[in-house]
Amino acid sequence: MAVATQSLEELCINSIRFLAIDAVEKAKSGHPGLPMGAAPMAFVLWDKFMRFNPKNPKWFNRDRFVLSAGHGCMLQYALLHLTGYDSVTIEDIKQFRQWGSKTPGHPENFETEGVEVTTGPLGQGIANAVGLAMAEAHLAAKFNKPDAKIVDHYTYVILGDGCNMEGVSGEACSFAGHLGLGKLIALYDDNHISIDGSTDVAFTEDVSKRFEAYGWHVLHVSDGNKDLNSIEKAIAAAKAVTDKPTMIKVTTLIGYGSPNKQNTAGVHGAALGTDEVKLTRENLGWEYEPFALPQDAVNHMRKAVERGATAEAEWNKTFADYKAKYAQEAAEFERYISGKLPDGWEKVLPTYTPEDKALPSRKHSETCLNKLAQVLPELIGGSADLTHSNLTEIKGFGDFQKGQYQNRNVHFGVREHGMGAICNGMALHGSGLIPYGATFLIFTDYMRAAIRLSALSLAGSIWVMTHDSIGQGEDGPTHQPVETLASLRAIPNLTVIRPADGNESSGAYKVAIEKAKQNDPTLLAFSRQNLPNLPGTSIEGVTKGAYTIVDSQGTPDIILIGTGSEVSLCVTAAEKLTSEGKKVRVVSMPCWELFEAQDAAYKESVLPKAVTKRVSVEAGVSFGWHKYVGTEGDTVSIDTFGASAPGGVCMEKFGFSVENVLATAKKVLG
Amino acid sequence: MAVATQSLEELCINSIRFLAIDAVEKAKSGHPGLPMGAAPMAFVLWDKFMRFNPKNPKWFNRDRFVLSAGHGCMLQYALLHLTGYDSVTIEDIKQFRQWGSKTPGHPENFETEGVEVTTGPLGQGIANAVGLAMAEAHLAAKFNKPDAKIVDHYTYVILGDGCNMEGVSGEACSFAGHLGLGKLIALYDDNHISIDGSTDVAFTEDVSKRFEAYGWHVLHVSDGNKDLNSIEKAIAAAKAVTDKPTMIKVTTLIGYGSPNKQNTAGVHGAALGTDEVKLTRENLGWEYEPFALPQDAVNHMRKAVERGATAEAEWNKTFADYKAKYAQEAAEFERYISGKLPDGWEKVLPTYTPEDKALPSRKHSETCLNKLAQVLPELIGGSADLTHSNLTEIKGFGDFQKGQYQNRNVHFGVREHGMGAICNGMALHGSGLIPYGATFLIFTDYMRAAIRLSALSLAGSIWVMTHDSIGQGEDGPTHQPVETLASLRAIPNLTVIRPADGNESSGAYKVAIEKAKQNDPTLLAFSRQNLPNLPGTSIEGVTKGAYTIVDSQGTPDIILIGTGSEVSLCVTAAEKLTSEGKKVRVVSMPCWELFEAQDAAYKESVLPKAVTKRVSVEAGVSFGWHKYVGTEGDTVSIDTFGASAPGGVCMEKFGFSVENVLATAKKVLG
Repeated sequence: MAVATQSLEELCINSIRFLAIDAVEKAKSGHPGLPMGAAPMAFVLWDKFMRFNPKNPKWFNRDRFVLSAGHGCMLQYALLHLTGYDSVTIEDIKQFRQWGSKTPGHPENFETEGVEVTTGPLGQGIANAVGLAMAEAHLAAKFNKPDAKIVDHYTYVILGDGCNMEGVSGEACSFAGHLGLGKLIALYDDNHISIDGSTDVAFTEDVSKRFEAYGWHVLHVSDGNKDLNSIEKAIAAAKAVTDKPTMIKVTTLIGYGSPNKQNTAGVHGAALGTDEVKLTRENLGWEYEPFALPQDAVNHMRKAVERGATAEAEWNKTFADYKAKYAQEAAEFERYISGKLPDGWEKVLPTYTPEDKALPSRKHSETCLNKLAQVLPELIGGSADLTHSNLTEIKGFGDFQKGQYQNRNVHFGVREHGMGAICNGMALHGSGLIPYGATFLIFTDYMRAAIRLSALSLAGSIWVMTHDSIGQGEDGPTHQPVETLASLRAIPNLTVIRPADGNESSGAYKVAIEKAKQNDPTLLAFSRQNLPNLPGTSIEGVTKGAYTIVDSQGTPDIILIGTGSEVSLCVTAAEKLTSEGKKVRVVSMPCWELFEAQDAAYKESVLPKAVTKRVSVEAGVSFGWHKYVGTEGDTVSIDTFGASAPGGVCMEKFGFSVENVLATAKKVLG
Repeated sequence: MAVATQSLEELCINSIRFLAIDAVEKAKSGHPGLPMGAAPMAFVLWDKFMRFNPKNPKWFNRDRFVLSAGHGCMLQYALLHLTGYDSVTIEDIKQFRQWGSKTPGHPENFETEGVEVTTGPLGQGIANAVGLAMAEAHLAAKFNKPDAKIVDHYTYVILGDGCNMEGVSGEACSFAGHLGLGKLIALYDDNHISIDGSTDVAFTEDVSKRFEAYGWHVLHVSDGNKDLNSIEKAIAAAKAVTDKPTMIKVTTLIGYGSPNKQNTAGVHGAALGTDEVKLTRENLGWEYEPFALPQDAVNHMRKAVERGATAEAEWNKTFADYKAKYAQEAAEFERYISGKLPDGWEKVLPTYTPEDKALPSRKHSETCLNKLAQVLPELIGGSADLTHSNLTEIKGFGDFQKGQYQNRNVHFGVREHGMGAICNGMALHGSGLIPYGATFLIFTDYMRAAIRLSALSLAGSIWVMTHDSIGQGEDGPTHQPVETLASLRAIPNLTVIRPADGNESSGAYKVAIEKAKQNDPTLLAFSRQNLPNLPGTSIEGVTKGAYTIVDSQGTPDIILIGTGSEVSLCVTAAEKLTSEGKKVRVVSMPCWELFEAQDAAYKESVLPKAVTKRVSVEAGVSFGWHKYVGTEGDTVSIDTFGASAPGGVCMEKFGFSVENVLATAKKVLG
């Protein structure tokens, strides 16, 4: 009997393979090839190295595992099931890719306990992993003591050719090399196959040499299908190098074991088919029925439960000792992990009156960030090389650099997409860190996939975006957002806030910090140019999304709705219209999503249905505004690209002037 | 007198420097540092190597020059002015970054003749350049004869640290190395400074080694400030290597010549200031008034006019010989260059009746692409590793690979962003090529910056996007677009078309091809799943953006507006409502932008103001639809992320069913 000849290790590895094969076969959908080829490296990693507690998946000091090649998610579900996580039962695996299952088509941290981040869009996972490793390095530097290491884990990644082709992975890995993140270990499943076929058609670079150029420690396992010993040695060697991240290229055959389909794109995104499954069973000597597992393999892999319990117990003891010696640090650490904010944190947010000096809202953002940094030590982040334009430096907290991981100002370099995915990784480390990433608003286009994933995967990142309109000025249309706010508002579960002045900037940060702790991202859009402080604005108003800041006696004839830098135009226009005998309300609407979340009565109180004459004023496209201005209203907007000229000139030329607001209002009034 | 001691070359180089210094100083805005440091390499390149005709900037066989570090645009304006282009006068330079000027804050091909592509968003230019070089290689392979090379030029790029940090440049350069584009030569201005300061804070990788890993020929000029001889030798050596692209790292000092600011971030994005300009003049021995130029330098650099005229005359002779010998090829070449379509090309587009088999619209897309490929040899493109999911292979036309540049199927690899910028480069080559790039609709997020630039810079790329809704199915929410259509519709000058069936798919391609030749991009969104062919759909209808496909007798009680896969739900719901005595119109609305471009009478004829009861049905967010459904209408939409399940199940569960359309319509009808 063929099975009898299999070693325990082969039984375990084939258990992983056939769970994947059978699940994909049943679903008639999914990617069996990667799990079949990467099963040996995954087995060695999880069996010999990974420290985790299946019965307490969120145990803080676990090693993090990221399957960056997320299409191979059955690999991860098989590992979770075999090592004893309750989140993935055999029934769950039988429901692979079905409605409501815990085993969706790509790994989703918000669906399946034991999955750390959401992968699938290629390259995101490895970049998230850089963020996870940065979070570990930061917390270790901050909390560990010579006699007590309470933060001490590795971040392991399996990535594929697709991940390595994506620019976002290059950005993040270059940065990881710069930072020398020694506890980041990536296993590159070098199988030479992507969906279009052999990587020969598009991807012939020397990946190892590229990673060496990034400053990584690079190893190669030439037979990743059979040579478990070399895999084990390589991971051990990776751990031994503590000042560089390690990339282990593990050469494998995709779909290993399938006699007719291994090493072809045919196993990339499709079930093997009944006949080939049968042949693969024969070829690998696998006599078990679909979804059946050899008890020896299960028994062996379930030892992870005991190992995990022991590891956690040891850590609990370490932490108890730590707490006894370092009560204050321990209390802070416990607060971090709890996800709670310190009492009274929001009191540091400044408020303003119209007498206060006009300032750019990016300057207010700087003030908020710096005040919050004092009371929220978990606030960590920076800019993609625009620190002194975004005004995102938190002064006195040093630069996060190799060997200086306790510091909190991160210089991401000109790597917006990498920054986004790294921030998401830090947020999803589960340690209470509040990461922020900054660039010009227009360059959200470079990092949009990461922003979307923050909203989807419940990563409480804060996106600090400045130069939020054609008021950007001289840099011209390549640097001036016009459609950008609309395109971001369209993303589900992303809160987009564009404050009008100092009070609203403080309100924006109040919302963003609270949302971060609820694992929801917020995107803040600040101006380059000066904005006056307006009457009636408030932190409270921002939390409701839209509110009346200037009102008329009785039902208004018209409502002017503004956001950000254009609210002041509305206020001035309202004064003129009022002086001409009109009843005018001005609504400041810094956030659509928060307004939509209010009850109907509140919404009616701000934008009464009966008042159909409405004008929106926003230095961006009209797209979406018809929901609020209705069929009888109008928009003051820009539905073309901008132009290079001083910001004030741009605003004036494109119609963002009191005169044009007045003219539009009068047209609407009829 | 210091000036007298300057060599002619120094006079020329300093002319470039001071045009930049003075322009930035006058504008009090801009980046003087890069032009000051990169002036020597730019001078050598333009003076000794670049072949171009200032008096006929669009001369086909010119070398292409791309300033990927677009913030240094004054470098390019200075070169254009000094070499005799009429597009940049001294007056234009004095109007640097002002409203309506020809010298905007970043190079814009649509504003300034002599600028090839629009740069500024970092990394785009080098990726565009890969597209330019691919276009040259393709046309050379297609048209050249052993006795007549009518296509034969280099593509030169100057890029900086910022470009090299961006993932998009990594994607494109890896691909360029794969393709062995020997006539692509990039000069890397290695000045060690980005906006945040020294690149030591974020960027310490070995860039040269990385490019070697990509398969590039890599050279280094260690003193780019003074050693003109080495620069010249390096460019000559680059030209001598014909089977690899070359990257020449040229180490320079940013802001060279400024005694207090050179080699600091202070010269990156700000004027030097009056005092420092004075000191720089002294330091470089420059006695000329602002904007004044030494006549010797002008005389020397204007020799480019004569060189250009000679080069063009020689080429004209070559082409005349070619035409005499190869009349048919010459005629085709001339048609390419003219931007004209061949007569009757559109006749190949198929039409369908409701009796024809239901197919996914991506399958119709495949049919259109393959039929068009037969009559439009200028159609060239491919997918970012999803060829057989996107169905974008044009059969019989081979793979575009190293040494096989005459072929037309491009395997971009998993490099969406690089693909986008490369397609834009091919479109902007000015040779009539129609590039297309394909991936899943959701992954437009990865390439959004390039899509935006296609719309801004008038690059007639065609974006072929499939799997256009939650109908994508099992891959789950990471792969299912919901907000994506809205976010793309928000981009000015981008035409987004989502066809409902076979006829509309043909219509979509008719529009896309025509727009491409008008230098406007189009984005097509196709379904994964089968769609029935509907009554009343037509190619003509698509060209109007929205049109009635099912109508009632007399004024309708309600209008159902659908797009793509949801139009059939509207048709079926309309039948049921009609059978219940309601008067129902169904409007298919494949393209908002084309509809908005119609006259008021047409718009009123499709969506009469008097009919306020309207329901939109689209498997995407409601964002934006209120413009068409108004305050009394409603939307059948999905304002959350999707889920992993078979596509039909997703559609049903999220309310894209005839039942839910009916229920919504009845609610609206009251």
